[in-house]
Amino acid sequence: MKTYPECIPCMFEQLLRSARLADLTEEKTFDVIRSFSKKLAYSSFSLSPPEIAVQLYREIKRLSKNDDPFRAVKRENINKALALFDEMRKLIAESADKLDFALRVAAVGNIVDFGALKSFEISREMLDNLEINKLHWEIDELREDLRKSSILLIIGDNAGEAVFDRALIEAITRLYSIQKVYYAVRGAPVINDVTFDDATYAGVDSVAEIITTGSDVPGIVLNECSVQFVELFRTADVVISKGQGNFETLHGCERKVYFLLKVKCGVVAKITNAGIGDILLFSNKKAPAKGGL
Amino acid sequence: MKTYPECIPCMFEQLLRSARLADLTEEKTFDVIRSFSKKLAYSSFSLSPPEIAVQLYREIKRLSKNDDPFRAVKRENINKALALFDEMRKLIAESADKLDFALRVAAVGNIVDFGALKSFEISREMLDNLEINKLHWEIDELREDLRKSSILLIIGDNAGEAVFDRALIEAITRLYSIQKVYYAVRGAPVINDVTFDDATYAGVDSVAEIITTGSDVPGIVLNECSVQFVELFRTADVVISKGQGNFETLHGCERKVYFLLKVKCGVVAKITNAGIGDILLFSNKKAPAKGGL
Repeated sequence: MKTYPECIPCMFEQLLRSARLADLTEEKTFDVIRSFSKKLAYSSFSLSPPEIAVQLYREIKRLSKNDDPFRAVKRENINKALALFDEMRKLIAESADKLDFALRVAAVGNIVDFGALKSFEISREMLDNLEINKLHWEIDELREDLRKSSILLIIGDNAGEAVFDRALIEAITRLYSIQKVYYAVRGAPVINDVTFDDATYAGVDSVAEIITTGSDVPGIVLNECSVQFVELFRTADVVISKGQGNFETLHGCERKVYFLLKVKCGVVAKITNAGIGDILLFSNKKAPAKGGL
Repeated sequence: MKTYPECIPCMFEQLLRSARLADLTEEKTFDVIRSFSKKLAYSSFSLSPPEIAVQLYREIKRLSKNDDPFRAVKRENINKALALFDEMRKLIAESADKLDFALRVAAVGNIVDFGALKSFEISREMLDNLEINKLHWEIDELREDLRKSSILLIIGDNAGEAVFDRALIEAITRLYSIQKVYYAVRGAPVINDVTFDDATYAGVDSVAEIITTGSDVPGIVLNECSVQFVELFRTADVVISKGQGNFETLHGCERKVYFLLKVKCGVVAKITNAGIGDILLFSNKKAPAKGGL
């Protein structure tokens, strides 16, 4: 999707949040504001929001002299998620509809502010009562596609979320005769998105082959990705894309992609014809979009 | 006050709101974003937020080819306020403490979203129960100063608010032997701020001499103002400044100024040591600031 005027204040909010997390001084925060403003002045707004916002994350990395300023936050999130892993696994195993439940678990990863997440908050009731948008929960079509598939590609989003995705991958490989699962991560650290190290630390390597996109954009911009990733993206039987950043960059792409995400802003709500806070599972071949904004 | 990093996303939010009100197309809105970003890239952040934000309002005026894109909105707000004027006047006249009550009425002008304001909502209870910050309600000091004054300058803020200020001016001139009241307005239209025409339409000319600052900044930047305004600002016995924009630009100035405002953001809350939503009346000679952010 392209960038909408509404995305711009949001990018500056992200800039502030990230500068704070990277412990930038006020002076350096203003340097990022200046440098990002300069980029913005000459940006094409037909680019997706993550393609534009990547400039500010690159600048924060440069000025904090830290290639992964969110490492500690990500590790903390992964540790919190790992502490819940056995419980989630058990809940999935006990479910009547294991795929549906495992998708909800993976969606929870995209919901929860780990700062607020406590063990008892992940309960069957919570997951049963997730605000799933019934119109955009294309689980039957996904089931059908998984039945016929041998190669599955899951595109990760946030670092802590990878633990929840691991539970989803386990469930899928038990239910379907998938031969190979790939888990795609960012090619370099960007915000709190999952990297190779994060995914390995989250234990995803025990259930999937972790591959990187080859790009530091917090989304999937194919012409910025490695040839290997693009090849896999084109040939995998099923692609599941997690989160808003991947949706913003992949929505409208040629191949069929299943998007599993929580709607976090008004722009994506309007494009998907859903409400803010809704959990969606839908493919772009039966896209709920009604011609964009 | 200087500009804080937190002010930047807020300026872009203002940009969007203003572009919508001025009926700019998406393309022209992006033009304002580009042009304002360019200015921002080379801004000194020791300037106050209104001094920086004025650039975006100038650009919106230029691109909408309309020197006063908010005229209709302002007229509507003034009309709504005028419909309440007699009721407010009566409430003030019936009050035990007329100055206190008239200040609350004038503060209400800075509170109310006129879209939501209905006649019955302006009641004695509402005004009695205004969330006035008791620590920053320096009414006794203001009384003392008004008793000794012959020239009073009130610096207006929003257009609809001018009607409420008119009620305050009436009350003050009845209570104190002020010889001359000046009501300062923006030198040219900027957002929904009060101009000479707006103040006249609001009937302020019947209780005060309306003068312009000579500047289109939505605040008071003395070296952008006319010599006449600066002279008056320096020599008036009492100056009452309404709203956040005037506070942001005048806070820290040399002469004593009474600020009457509703705290609308976290930055001003921190500087004034108050809460968001609080109504404050305080002077910068007994400033509640604790050394800024």
